[in-house]
Amino acid sequence: MAKIRSEHAGGFYHFYPKLATVVTVQAGEKRNALAVAWNCPLSRQPPIYGVSISPQRFSHGLILEAKEFVVNFLPIEARKLIAAVGRTSGREFDKFEQFGIEVEQPLKLASPILKEAYAAYECELLEHRTWGDHDWFVGRIVAVHQEEGAFTSEGLIAFEQITPALYLGGDFYLEMEKKAIHRIGREEALQSQC
Amino acid sequence: MAKIRSEHAGGFYHFYPKLATVVTVQAGEKRNALAVAWNCPLSRQPPIYGVSISPQRFSHGLILEAKEFVVNFLPIEARKLIAAVGRTSGREFDKFEQFGIEVEQPLKLASPILKEAYAAYECELLEHRTWGDHDWFVGRIVAVHQEEGAFTSEGLIAFEQITPALYLGGDFYLEMEKKAIHRIGREEALQSQC
Repeated sequence: MAKIRSEHAGGFYHFYPKLATVVTVQAGEKRNALAVAWNCPLSRQPPIYGVSISPQRFSHGLILEAKEFVVNFLPIEARKLIAAVGRTSGREFDKFEQFGIEVEQPLKLASPILKEAYAAYECELLEHRTWGDHDWFVGRIVAVHQEEGAFTSEGLIAFEQITPALYLGGDFYLEMEKKAIHRIGREEALQSQC
Repeated sequence: MAKIRSEHAGGFYHFYPKLATVVTVQAGEKRNALAVAWNCPLSRQPPIYGVSISPQRFSHGLILEAKEFVVNFLPIEARKLIAAVGRTSGREFDKFEQFGIEVEQPLKLASPILKEAYAAYECELLEHRTWGDHDWFVGRIVAVHQEEGAFTSEGLIAFEQITPALYLGGDFYLEMEKKAIHRIGREEALQSQC
């Protein structure tokens, strides 16, 4: 199809939808929660995860201090929580108190797990690295939390139970529905004529 | 809700669905296409993008040689193409010929743009870094291709035109439907009680 070509990234929303996670961190008495859509697995064995956070955010300094963070995966029903922690700063107030956010105990580290999360990764900070206007925090996953029934026996997200929160950019969140799940095995893939 | 806690990542599919992109690369006479679900923006200004690729893949060496790559964003209709380039190796055959994959000319670099892509980023390699069993390739975006009508005037993906290909892990691809788009402004977010 006809494509528009440009040397400029424009709105830079082409890579959405992306899971709208919330990163939590506890550093001594200080704690915070921040919406982070720019998140990605980096290794399966050992399990390693990356999150991108602006140096301007309060959580940035807390993660460097705590040397740990938690990635919380949330359902679309939690979209106001995600927007609330995304649009405010932990320098103004304690977001957990302000927005009535309930937490659960971590297994290995100190950063809180969000009660509304259907899954969460506890990560020990391995490295952070500046790329342009964001810093990339890389963490080794040392514990995993997952809601009972949120994933199938094959490990796939159970859409009958969970509708993941997907971010579209700006103030926009996508509530999706499953139309179909397609299984494409190697044999079928090999016969492909595109 | 009740959560299961573990020190092990298990199936390590908790972070899906993720956009199922195809990374293309041209290094001299050699070229390849590879399915890459582990992809993420890293900076808005300048625009920087990361992709995670196993050292075992043919594309890994080609990207190091070419010092560039292209990230192609594809609709769910291209799921067999994605599975085909994901389940085969460019060492066996030229995937473009084998699967009849049509390409378009890049604007700034040498790596091909997939005709079926609704958007694509041309990236100059800035750095690669080993994390566990994958390498993280970071590229500066020097050109953007986007299909006419694929994005709204606000830059959001136009679901009336495009259903993005979402990967779920294993051999599974999600065909989604838009149920609703929620706009949550700062004011509404601030009134949140979760």
